[in-house]
Amino acid sequence: MTRKMHLNAFTQCSICHHSKGQWKHPLDRTSTGYRDVGYWVDLARTLERGCFDSLFLADVHGTYDVYKGSRETAVKHAVQIPGNDPTVIIPAMAHATSHLGFACTYSTTYFPPYQTAKLFSSLDHLSDGRVAWNVVTSYLNDANKNFGITEPLPHDQRYDRADEYMDVVYKLWEHSWEEDAIVRDVEADTHTDPAKVHEINHVGEWFNVPGPHMCEPSPQRTPVIFQAGQSGRGNEFAARHAEAIFCIHPNTELAAPGVKSVREAVAAEGRAPDDVKIIQGVAVIVAPTDEEARLKERTCRRYASPEGVLALFSGWAGIDMSELASGKNLEEYESNAIQGVLSFFSKIAPDREWTVDEIGEFMAIGSLMPKIVGSPATVADELERWMAEADVDGFNVHAVTQPAGFEDFVDLVVPELQRRGRLRTDYEGSTLRESFFGAGRRRLPETHVAHRALPPWRKAGA
Amino acid sequence: MTRKMHLNAFTQCSICHHSKGQWKHPLDRTSTGYRDVGYWVDLARTLERGCFDSLFLADVHGTYDVYKGSRETAVKHAVQIPGNDPTVIIPAMAHATSHLGFACTYSTTYFPPYQTAKLFSSLDHLSDGRVAWNVVTSYLNDANKNFGITEPLPHDQRYDRADEYMDVVYKLWEHSWEEDAIVRDVEADTHTDPAKVHEINHVGEWFNVPGPHMCEPSPQRTPVIFQAGQSGRGNEFAARHAEAIFCIHPNTELAAPGVKSVREAVAAEGRAPDDVKIIQGVAVIVAPTDEEARLKERTCRRYASPEGVLALFSGWAGIDMSELASGKNLEEYESNAIQGVLSFFSKIAPDREWTVDEIGEFMAIGSLMPKIVGSPATVADELERWMAEADVDGFNVHAVTQPAGFEDFVDLVVPELQRRGRLRTDYEGSTLRESFFGAGRRRLPETHVAHRALPPWRKAGA
Repeated sequence: MTRKMHLNAFTQCSICHHSKGQWKHPLDRTSTGYRDVGYWVDLARTLERGCFDSLFLADVHGTYDVYKGSRETAVKHAVQIPGNDPTVIIPAMAHATSHLGFACTYSTTYFPPYQTAKLFSSLDHLSDGRVAWNVVTSYLNDANKNFGITEPLPHDQRYDRADEYMDVVYKLWEHSWEEDAIVRDVEADTHTDPAKVHEINHVGEWFNVPGPHMCEPSPQRTPVIFQAGQSGRGNEFAARHAEAIFCIHPNTELAAPGVKSVREAVAAEGRAPDDVKIIQGVAVIVAPTDEEARLKERTCRRYASPEGVLALFSGWAGIDMSELASGKNLEEYESNAIQGVLSFFSKIAPDREWTVDEIGEFMAIGSLMPKIVGSPATVADELERWMAEADVDGFNVHAVTQPAGFEDFVDLVVPELQRRGRLRTDYEGSTLRESFFGAGRRRLPETHVAHRALPPWRKAGA
Repeated sequence: MTRKMHLNAFTQCSICHHSKGQWKHPLDRTSTGYRDVGYWVDLARTLERGCFDSLFLADVHGTYDVYKGSRETAVKHAVQIPGNDPTVIIPAMAHATSHLGFACTYSTTYFPPYQTAKLFSSLDHLSDGRVAWNVVTSYLNDANKNFGITEPLPHDQRYDRADEYMDVVYKLWEHSWEEDAIVRDVEADTHTDPAKVHEINHVGEWFNVPGPHMCEPSPQRTPVIFQAGQSGRGNEFAARHAEAIFCIHPNTELAAPGVKSVREAVAAEGRAPDDVKIIQGVAVIVAPTDEEARLKERTCRRYASPEGVLALFSGWAGIDMSELASGKNLEEYESNAIQGVLSFFSKIAPDREWTVDEIGEFMAIGSLMPKIVGSPATVADELERWMAEADVDGFNVHAVTQPAGFEDFVDLVVPELQRRGRLRTDYEGSTLRESFFGAGRRRLPETHVAHRALPPWRKAGA
């Protein structure tokens, strides 16, 4: 049987997401649409028509201020600012759809676990079990300051704390309310059996949370866990917790060993290989013919703002890219940091002469994501090649112009993938976890770390 | 001209709200509806049909565990548990309506101001300016523990901190983004003019927040501020910040001086009398005739769970009401705390012999709210009497059976109020602030404390 492909639409409640400058494109609607419920409802319906697994909403809590040592460039090019909270848009989209899932970034650094548990249980109820949580530990210095964090934790310790954070929310989601706690026994005047609602009494290094959870068990209990580990400790965290790990490899050659090592890390956590879906980010421009697609790309490039994406990259890398001279090959710099940047981009294209202008141009469309431009057959070929050669399970699709690019993908690529037997023509079940893992699997499998310490009432088979 | 009445529907994303036990009533839909988007969308449409100002959603972050020294009773009777986060349901309801406002409780104790500002700006955008924030400082000991707060601030200090908290969010909402910051200048490749997005650089006793705000100016900028000060320091806080102050006076005689003193406190803050609407909580049971309404009440009382409401009251008062003997007049107790309770209820009904059973029975329908039971004319008469004798501006309407009680109010009381010229037949403007204060007033007036320290760019008339 042909291995099925998973598809998430990757975006943000902000403007242009990973293709800075596209707000100037005549088909862009993000510049005002991002703050309009109707925009999101329409997009959700489009994606459900295309049998996508989910709409995946990134989030950020501060501005990118490394470039030129100021946030000026980020503000000018709408680099993730202005932006809205993504959690509140989900139930409206869920109400307009019946199967599409909704993944949402939420930070373990800025929100207490008790609230996070309540929020995601609420979203899971309101979407009938179609929510995923993209767990991030947050690193942006500017955001930390806004939350009063003057001494952020070192990277690895941030993940240690996040491990305990996950322990707390798992206990609230999985081990506080028994499945049949709500009895609605009119005769006994009992809505809920108090003996079946348990405190969690978590006492740890970072958190003390007695519980119980405020919410009754939602369809999935624990939302589908997304993560993007990008470091040693981050990968370990992802291998332990994530059900979908997303990555942005520049090409299949580099992706293949990366994916293999993630799968090995997952196995080392005692999990089945299929317990984690590996999802690669790709920027797609599709049109009826290859030639039209290339023309489309050229139009998009005309609207691109390389300076905006350099502000983004400077924030990610912690290097002020404005200090690099236009036209000067990165090879000519002595600084280790710049050599690190060069080494990174050389992997993407070894033969290209990388200057700051080349980096800006490369990233202006879909930032670091591989760009796939072509006819439906060309795009489908390329996605299939990624699955075959890099062993990824699916894709976070970035549309360069939004929402038009997503509509194009659904109208052109989706039928091609379905014709090839690569993509569902109907959803497997009713929850997001079932979309990823098959009908009937609404809950975390027993091998997941959330179940490592079962409370007595679960051991008893309840 | 007849003074217009303001109406909010007061409820919670939980079960039965202030009338414990009604989940057993055949017309109750809260027991499953509270976690269903469709339920909320239907309710919002009903309220908009009835020209209500807003749907007002309470929230809580812990369980009531004073009664019997345990949360058992609260869980059994679904006393605000299970419950969902109310913020996430608002955009779905906003999308299904065009004028109804949405007020939502959010705690200054549990959420950082930077996040609160982003969340409410997002909601104000997504609802086209129809959001209110009910500012609470939170007191529930059980909730504090879940947020890792082992030494809660003393009452007055909680309000000092909340004053500074408001200062932070006002700066983010009102003083960070200039109105015309977003320029979308294609030629200049400038989406937003960085010179018009300002840091707030708040440095205070409790918070340090540099900003700028993540969100562009929303239709109302600052959401309509709701508050329910119930103490000296709380009243001061409300008089300074609130645009709608809600109260639960037991009768008009006690309400009149209370309302007068609030209006004086508002004036003392340099605000106009009309800058604050005073909203009284009432529990309404309406039917085509008085007799039918009384029958309806009797049915509701058959389903009431006095023990549930005693658990609620024990949490509010910090007194374990289970220790009082059934049938024993509160006069017979020596404890100051019990005498305080007696003095409270004696004001409600001086001639009643108050026992714990009487308290439970009184509160089982609409807790401490005055109960208004009768035909549309009777209910309208009583609401008009409250306005005339106590000088309140409107009502938080609690429906005993939900959503049926709200539907009854809209179908029966609303036309009667409209016939009397008391209630709008169409909305004044498009934002919630305009519903409260008239067409054109989408923003806080310049007399409001939020504008006390104007930043230079606003002084310049921008």
